[in-house]
Amino acid sequence: MQSETARVEAFSDGVFAIAITLLILEIKIPSPDQGNLIVTLLRQWPSYLAFLLSFAYIGVMWINHHRMFTLIRRCTDALLVLNLLLLLGVTAVPFPTAVLAAHLGGPGERTAALVYNSTFVVIAIFFNLLWRYAAKHCLLQEQAALKTAQQVSVQYMVGPLMYGACLVTALFNVRASVAANVALALFFALPPTVVRKLGLGQPMDQ
Amino acid sequence: MQSETARVEAFSDGVFAIAITLLILEIKIPSPDQGNLIVTLLRQWPSYLAFLLSFAYIGVMWINHHRMFTLIRRCTDALLVLNLLLLLGVTAVPFPTAVLAAHLGGPGERTAALVYNSTFVVIAIFFNLLWRYAAKHCLLQEQAALKTAQQVSVQYMVGPLMYGACLVTALFNVRASVAANVALALFFALPPTVVRKLGLGQPMDQ
Amino acid sequence: MQSETARVEAFSDGVFAIAITLLILEIKIPSPDQGNLIVTLLRQWPSYLAFLLSFAYIGVMWINHHRMFTLIRRCTDALLVLNLLLLLGVTAVPFPTAVLAAHLGGPGERTAALVYNSTFVVIAIFFNLLWRYAAKHCLLQEQAALKTAQQVSVQYMVGPLMYGACLVTALFNVRASVAANVALALFFALPPTVVRKLGLGQPMDQ
Amino acid sequence: MQSETARVEAFSDGVFAIAITLLILEIKIPSPDQGNLIVTLLRQWPSYLAFLLSFAYIGVMWINHHRMFTLIRRCTDALLVLNLLLLLGVTAVPFPTAVLAAHLGGPGERTAALVYNSTFVVIAIFFNLLWRYAAKHCLLQEQAALKTAQQVSVQYMVGPLMYGACLVTALFNVRASVAANVALALFFALPPTVVRKLGLGQPMDQ
Repeated sequence: MQSETARVEAFSDGVFAIAITLLILEIKIPSPDQGNLIVTLLRQWPSYLAFLLSFAYIGVMWINHHRMFTLIRRCTDALLVLNLLLLLGVTAVPFPTAVLAAHLGGPGERTAALVYNSTFVVIAIFFNLLWRYAAKHCLLQEQAALKTAQQVSVQYMVGPLMYGACLVTALFNVRASVAANVALALFFALPPTVVRKLGLGQPMDQ
Repeated sequence: MQSETARVEAFSDGVFAIAITLLILEIKIPSPDQGNLIVTLLRQWPSYLAFLLSFAYIGVMWINHHRMFTLIRRCTDALLVLNLLLLLGVTAVPFPTAVLAAHLGGPGERTAALVYNSTFVVIAIFFNLLWRYAAKHCLLQEQAALKTAQQVSVQYMVGPLMYGACLVTALFNVRASVAANVALALFFALPPTVVRKLGLGQPMDQ
Repeated sequence: MQSETARVEAFSDGVFAIAITLLILEIKIPSPDQGNLIVTLLRQWPSYLAFLLSFAYIGVMWINHHRMFTLIRRCTDALLVLNLLLLLGVTAVPFPTAVLAAHLGGPGERTAALVYNSTFVVIAIFFNLLWRYAAKHCLLQEQAALKTAQQVSVQYMVGPLMYGACLVTALFNVRASVAANVALALFFALPPTVVRKLGLGQPMDQ
Repeated sequence: MQSETARVEAFSDGVFAIAITLLILEIKIPSPDQGNLIVTLLRQWPSYLAFLLSFAYIGVMWINHHRMFTLIRRCTDALLVLNLLLLLGVTAVPFPTAVLAAHLGGPGERTAALVYNSTFVVIAIFFNLLWRYAAKHCLLQEQAALKTAQQVSVQYMVGPLMYGACLVTALFNVRASVAANVALALFFALPPTVVRKLGLGQPMDQ
């Protein structure tokens, strides 16, 4: 028998860790009869880009999940179900990533970018559902925790909006939406202290 | 050296987390020369359905495993072996899921649905074996735990019966059995409070 | 910062859990154009057999690893390296399993059975190396632990011998060696109490 | 709610465990119609070599990560991000490993060896970034820990240099660079006590 939330975190960590590691399996190994290896490797750039974007997205999501659970005191069945809903989104990421990698630069790139960004919007919404429920029913009853939680609530609203904007951008210009994905990933990967110096706020900046 | 059950839970969490995450690998990535990407993606609906059903099944199974172990005080060799038997069933899930996804709507759909539901019946039986053994030999010796355990014992009997009914349904009507699978998954995913308001009981409702 | 052995166990649990779950990926999904699904599924029996054998082997190995570490008090660098050597063997299991599944019943079945059993002999030897080192340098300094450790040392010697016998058998008769693998797996999966009643001892019977 | 660094370690352990276990999936299963199984298996030696090299690399990296975190007291956002950067490198390893396995002995072997060793140089640099940041901001404030940390800092500088040397060697002679990789892996796998007797120092020798 472990503490209640410890096992939820362990299971979630497992799912995050596996989803982030499976991404590499979607990159194809060039076979020796495909000609010059350097050329074949370079031609696969959409695979590397999609891998990096999805790695950044899942990684930042894990950091936020980790931070969220440092504020959570107890589990309810509903919390478990909402957490599973978030993990459903996370485990699905390798699929839209591979679709984007296979179709970027081809005739299906708009569809692929829409599928890719839709997944991220849905995950961001699931994350907000989980957080809102937890903030209402499962938090540590300390003033500091409650104040942090309020700040986080405001910041987490930004996620769905930003990925929603990328989704809408993809309707008009696929390259611009991918560039926005890259910018978002870099932005989220910056340490909060740098962000603070730049005068910006972000979900990671607890 | 960790606590005895902690490592069983950690290992089980790992297996559940991997089995639930591997499901996505069975969904094929449409290649650019398969024509219109939207059409190809939509035509793959049995894959998405099978993914969602298996995700829900493993997810709910994990929640119940988690709840079961909050009542377990100590491990015996037999508990370890019965737990491995359950995990054997859980790790097998990606195979019948992929078989169902590949054959739903084709001539092999009856066989695929039978294989799929048989797996779930077997897992539900293994789960009952594990629970019955644990309830007899490994529980916390507190009144509250023992009372909860008795209630759970009755509720867990329902699992094999319901998936058995889906299995029999598949013999006559594959679509109806898949619809019953969807209904079961949705039912199990409802938070217990909603179920209680609807006047229904379910295994998740501890 | 966690306890020293806790993280070794967590990492090992992860590797065991993943190796045992990846086995299912080696079973091929029959495609709709391979004809009657029942026939195709049944014809794949070597895959199911190999899956079950390897699952039982890794599962029992994990139970023993778990039991071993309940007696271990501290880690040294050499323990970490010997543990990695054991994990090297465990992660390799999906490969000989798939080779056996692909060649059982064909002209390469002798080679496949030799590769399969060699892997198990090597893992059993690595397990003994790890245990012998741990028994000498890393144990809890309690009388009960030391006595258990001595008994375990004798029992663990049996593993390499039994799988060595299967290996030699495969040279003469592949079917007999596979039958011996099945018998060993069933024997190891029996709860120790049953084994004791039958008047037999086994590694699992701590 | 778990301790802060416990979950970072759990997530990292998961990623290391999965990356090290996925390596085996890149080794192809010879099909029965490829002729004599022994010959086909032996011809795949580059796959086994690449598997062993990458296993050793990730395994030793995990041992060092484990040792590093025994000295770390608290987490900051920047530590989480730098840790993710290291894990990005670790999850990528199966790809260059498979590229090396597929091209060793063929016309693309120079490119493959360069890609392979570049990955290792990059990971070694990420590891140093993480360690330097941790040593400055996140350590246990005990004299013993601080002294160990200083020694480790010097030793960790060696990693990027040695893999950098392998990278440069690959430009002139691929076989020599692979031999150097093997020598490095064996060297790192030696227990520190043996290394000390030989009068050598190494990162593992804390």
